[in-house]
Amino acid sequence: MTVFFAVDIGGTSTKTALVDDQGTVLDKRSFKTWRHIPLADFSQGMVQALSEGMDAIGLQRRDIGGAGIGIAGFLDLNRGTVVEAINVGWANVPFIDLAQDALKMRVTIDNDANVAALGEAWMGAGRGARSVLCATVGTGIGSGIVIDGQLYRGVNGMAGEIGHLVVQRENGYLCNCGMHGCLETLASATAMVRLAQQVQQQGGISPEIMIDGAKTVMDLAQHGNPAAQQVVQEVAHWLGYGLSLVANTLNPDVIVIGGGVSSAGEAFLGPVRMAFLETALKRVSEAVEIRLAVLGNDAGVVGAGRMAAQRLG
Amino acid sequence: MTVFFAVDIGGTSTKTALVDDQGTVLDKRSFKTWRHIPLADFSQGMVQALSEGMDAIGLQRRDIGGAGIGIAGFLDLNRGTVVEAINVGWANVPFIDLAQDALKMRVTIDNDANVAALGEAWMGAGRGARSVLCATVGTGIGSGIVIDGQLYRGVNGMAGEIGHLVVQRENGYLCNCGMHGCLETLASATAMVRLAQQVQQQGGISPEIMIDGAKTVMDLAQHGNPAAQQVVQEVAHWLGYGLSLVANTLNPDVIVIGGGVSSAGEAFLGPVRMAFLETALKRVSEAVEIRLAVLGNDAGVVGAGRMAAQRLG
Repeated sequence: MTVFFAVDIGGTSTKTALVDDQGTVLDKRSFKTWRHIPLADFSQGMVQALSEGMDAIGLQRRDIGGAGIGIAGFLDLNRGTVVEAINVGWANVPFIDLAQDALKMRVTIDNDANVAALGEAWMGAGRGARSVLCATVGTGIGSGIVIDGQLYRGVNGMAGEIGHLVVQRENGYLCNCGMHGCLETLASATAMVRLAQQVQQQGGISPEIMIDGAKTVMDLAQHGNPAAQQVVQEVAHWLGYGLSLVANTLNPDVIVIGGGVSSAGEAFLGPVRMAFLETALKRVSEAVEIRLAVLGNDAGVVGAGRMAAQRLG
Repeated sequence: MTVFFAVDIGGTSTKTALVDDQGTVLDKRSFKTWRHIPLADFSQGMVQALSEGMDAIGLQRRDIGGAGIGIAGFLDLNRGTVVEAINVGWANVPFIDLAQDALKMRVTIDNDANVAALGEAWMGAGRGARSVLCATVGTGIGSGIVIDGQLYRGVNGMAGEIGHLVVQRENGYLCNCGMHGCLETLASATAMVRLAQQVQQQGGISPEIMIDGAKTVMDLAQHGNPAAQQVVQEVAHWLGYGLSLVANTLNPDVIVIGGGVSSAGEAFLGPVRMAFLETALKRVSEAVEIRLAVLGNDAGVVGAGRMAAQRLG
């Protein structure tokens, strides 16, 4: 049995874990991170978490087969650099070199959506499937594609950027990417809050608390508020449509939906499936199951562990 | 050097070839086919073409490593059956068994768009690329995805069915598949003819001669007819938009466009690229080249030969 050090870097905290090659999380901890955290502080946090984790379960450095690290942002996988990671404020950082110096082991990196997709495909809702699309629907939409157990990254790491499928070609909202009408402007927590503000001004949902805002909308919908139900339906409809475009291209057997918006569960998934069926080819929809993610916050570290194991394998 | 028997079944003729493992076409011939051709007649045609081909280049049956056959239609690759092939009128045919009995060698089948994609990716416009989408734009839109030299078929052979991306969600035209607003209702030769009839009633283009009809429109456009240019632009625009949806999912390095409509060359490809850039992510469009197919009618037999070689390899 080999054990791997798994890291999932977030804007407010970084999760770490020791994960074995069977997907078992042997130790789990976290340390505080923040926007513009100095790299030296971050490295020290990782080293300390690794050291404490090994102590807790009685492992030595030589028992660890390598590290896998997931980072939200644009990465250059060929050079091992972070091109830009907005939530920790890093830009053009030679990340693999820094992490390997600090941890004294081989380090593999990928973006957080890919790493979470690998986790869900390996040990979560996509377990046993041959071709998995895993979409994380929160403030934006991230996603990863796992084919025969391997991440499919495309030629420069952009495969599965389904949040930026332009689905509303006229009068679409401006997206962070600079285009208009991207799927994530219509089928994310952000879209849910914006729609809620449009149909229910009296709801008083502040745009500053996007995820909680969306949670509020979903709670209201589940308690029978018709305006909130309409909002959830519309967001679900756009997501189902966007997923049908991806499925007609990829023909996967499982689509996993995770992230904040998926916490509404079947109340959200039902209308997603309905919309999906309208625009997916019959033989494509017959072959696919749309499921909720099951690993929650652990998807990142489980996938990071898997990534490190595949690098070794 | 191993040689393979390659077959590309069409509605009016079936092309056959002997292709070596370097992609060289050593012999090429064809025999007549028609809708509802009896399977016995078809088998005899194949056997005769194989025999004549071997005689022409001095090969024996033992020199042939297997056969690859491309068929337009829905296939069940697990069972080796033709579920439905409209242009030859076959349904529920145990095709691999029949072909193996007739040819006395191992037979591999796939649909014609996949086989042509494999040919273009191997020896044509996608040569050397890591991830190729090859779209054949004629009466409809067929396409195939080749990743690291292998066809990516999806879980039940439907991967790359980009002709059925629903891109016009309101007032879309009815597609053969039963849905409305599919890409192939807007970005095919059929769409070109329909649009030409709308903007230029006096053109007198008969809907019965779809491909020639589109050719007429393209010829008019190249000779400066503004109405025809507008039609070509609109069709190209839809195709570029549809390809951007696929590229934001797959992140390929090459997109190959073949089929009747591509014969307009750069006059068609230019507006396709323009539209593509509007809705593709910047990093996706930076990584991809959109090229015309180069193998023409040979793409099918070259890909069929490759498919047989991969089966053996």
